[in-house]
Amino acid sequence: MNHKVLILGAGGYLGWPASLYFASRGYEVLAVDNDSKQFLMQETGSRSINEPPSIKDREIPSSLQSNLTAEYLDCRHFSQLESCLRKFQPDTVIHLAEQPSAPLSMQNFDKSHYTLINNLETTHNILWAICGLKKRPHLIKLGTMGEYGTPNIDIEEGWLEIRHNSRSDKFLYPRQASSLYHTTKIMDTDLIWFFVRTHQLAVTDLMQGPVFGCKISEDSFGELFSELCYDDIFGTVINRFAAQAARDLPLTVYGSGNQIRGYIALQDSLRCMELATENPPQPGDLSIYNQFTSCLSINEIADTFVQAGKEVNKSVTIRRVTNPRVEKEEHYYNPQNIKLLNLGLEPHPLDLEAALELIQFCLQHRSEINTDKILPSVTWKK
Amino acid sequence: MNHKVLILGAGGYLGWPASLYFASRGYEVLAVDNDSKQFLMQETGSRSINEPPSIKDREIPSSLQSNLTAEYLDCRHFSQLESCLRKFQPDTVIHLAEQPSAPLSMQNFDKSHYTLINNLETTHNILWAICGLKKRPHLIKLGTMGEYGTPNIDIEEGWLEIRHNSRSDKFLYPRQASSLYHTTKIMDTDLIWFFVRTHQLAVTDLMQGPVFGCKISEDSFGELFSELCYDDIFGTVINRFAAQAARDLPLTVYGSGNQIRGYIALQDSLRCMELATENPPQPGDLSIYNQFTSCLSINEIADTFVQAGKEVNKSVTIRRVTNPRVEKEEHYYNPQNIKLLNLGLEPHPLDLEAALELIQFCLQHRSEINTDKILPSVTWKK
Repeated sequence: MNHKVLILGAGGYLGWPASLYFASRGYEVLAVDNDSKQFLMQETGSRSINEPPSIKDREIPSSLQSNLTAEYLDCRHFSQLESCLRKFQPDTVIHLAEQPSAPLSMQNFDKSHYTLINNLETTHNILWAICGLKKRPHLIKLGTMGEYGTPNIDIEEGWLEIRHNSRSDKFLYPRQASSLYHTTKIMDTDLIWFFVRTHQLAVTDLMQGPVFGCKISEDSFGELFSELCYDDIFGTVINRFAAQAARDLPLTVYGSGNQIRGYIALQDSLRCMELATENPPQPGDLSIYNQFTSCLSINEIADTFVQAGKEVNKSVTIRRVTNPRVEKEEHYYNPQNIKLLNLGLEPHPLDLEAALELIQFCLQHRSEINTDKILPSVTWKK
Repeated sequence: MNHKVLILGAGGYLGWPASLYFASRGYEVLAVDNDSKQFLMQETGSRSINEPPSIKDREIPSSLQSNLTAEYLDCRHFSQLESCLRKFQPDTVIHLAEQPSAPLSMQNFDKSHYTLINNLETTHNILWAICGLKKRPHLIKLGTMGEYGTPNIDIEEGWLEIRHNSRSDKFLYPRQASSLYHTTKIMDTDLIWFFVRTHQLAVTDLMQGPVFGCKISEDSFGELFSELCYDDIFGTVINRFAAQAARDLPLTVYGSGNQIRGYIALQDSLRCMELATENPPQPGDLSIYNQFTSCLSINEIADTFVQAGKEVNKSVTIRRVTNPRVEKEEHYYNPQNIKLLNLGLEPHPLDLEAALELIQFCLQHRSEINTDKILPSVTWKK
């Protein structure tokens, strides 16, 4: 195999594990990043477990050094991105190069503006750079389940056949998100769908739910643990609960806790990217997959961590806090996720064992956890 | 009445007539612009009839000088925009401050990038500036019928009740546009709907079809003629046909000519903005109106100009050219437009008389028409 994969945003929570994973599976990987997450974390004073250095200084397991290169690249510089694509000639481009935090996007004008312009400029640059290539690669874009919001009808995978006044047509499934960050992902989708139709690109959009965990395990390098954010800005709820349990803090449930979302383990997320890489759409087609393995309420997740805590003799408690977000706390939620299962995904949903493993990981890194950075610091209401 | 209207993008084809119109009807108007259209027209070498000077140097009829002020303001400078809003304290903000040309947005990377960032940054700045005010004005945003594209089902006014698997919910009507410019308008809608829901803003989105004509007639100042663009970049089809007829050039029909759109006269567009101003939604509501008065195919418009030409002894011919755009040339099209009619709009659709008046206007300005700038210079396909 000489399948070349360019990973944009390769320095992040998903990007670096993906770079190692694809390299270990024999792909020729070019992993690029502009270190923007590190800069943002400095600004917010966030710390993480296994905090990584600049993309230029990442440690690459010796078994992967022949097919993984990590470089600095800022996708917002069009000419740099363009020349990278021309030189590397990827078969697949995986686009993870966006500001990924909902709370950060809601913090103030500057961060909202940064999220909007950063995410859209990056996506726009990538689309134009691909259009300029003779051999156009398959673009895999990380979307989010958050684009759908919490509609009162079943959530299909990206598309919806609508019947109205005895006629019908197929449309992008309606989207309405509950943060500025998630809204930029909707806008990405609009932009990508326009380029797919107009310039016959082949694009896969992965509508991913919040990811948990940080372990990747491959024959070629054994077990590795990537960065884990547990703070209120970059941490997602499951990782945050693990850190709270490890530090004997109550699990902070926002509002009623009845908010339901679809979650996915890091290892499953990586496998989904691989399945998408192996199954490119035709030029002019936009494939959309819902990328999660189980739907859980915040309360169900909290209960799982209370149970898991008992296994390590911890009495984990739950504390309800005023919801800092504007979101429905009681809602219907029934999203489909059959497409990736049909392609071969074997799910590892959150269960007692997975929660326990996460708590144990956080216990090992107990001293790295800054407990001042866990409670919500950003509220949605102005 | 002491109703204050702030018009953003007041230097443009709609903005300046709107400024005069609102002032003549007794509103206190602050008209601001950054002269960006003039700069863009310099870059593309476009010329127009009645080409206006900088916003600072506009001639204001004496009857309007007490309640119309025109100033330079760049909405992309957040602090300038913010202080303008704080100082003027408008009751209504009319947002026309966007790059309005579909062909320009498709010309090359730089213009595509400019359109994307200019339009979204402007809208984002306006939303944040309004959120920061104690007394939040009603925002009227110029959208476009082009956001809907040409779906195979009836086009409702902004919203669609969708029934799916025995459940139902109300969503933004699905949108899929056929230029980068029109796609930025979809993205505007996503952004605005997010801010309306999250921050309880009161917003009206006017989904306008292509506008024709340049005459405004008010008791206070008599008849005035605004700028008329007839070129392939900033001119829309009806105005372009009038210029071609006046200069004895064939009317250039793109492709089959069976593309149908909803059109509206300039005077009706101004009245719609006034109706929207008089009927603000509640905070937290996004009102959406489809703003056109009649649906016509390109061929029907061309035929009207052939007939109108006969009235001034001109033998107007039609020339089919390869469609430079990527769009359906045969399609279903049935959009609703009842809401503005119910509010009191009295339509002046394109008819023989209106076409004749436009040809006569172009004949009077015959020497100002640069015939080298009419044929399409931008193709959609890369």
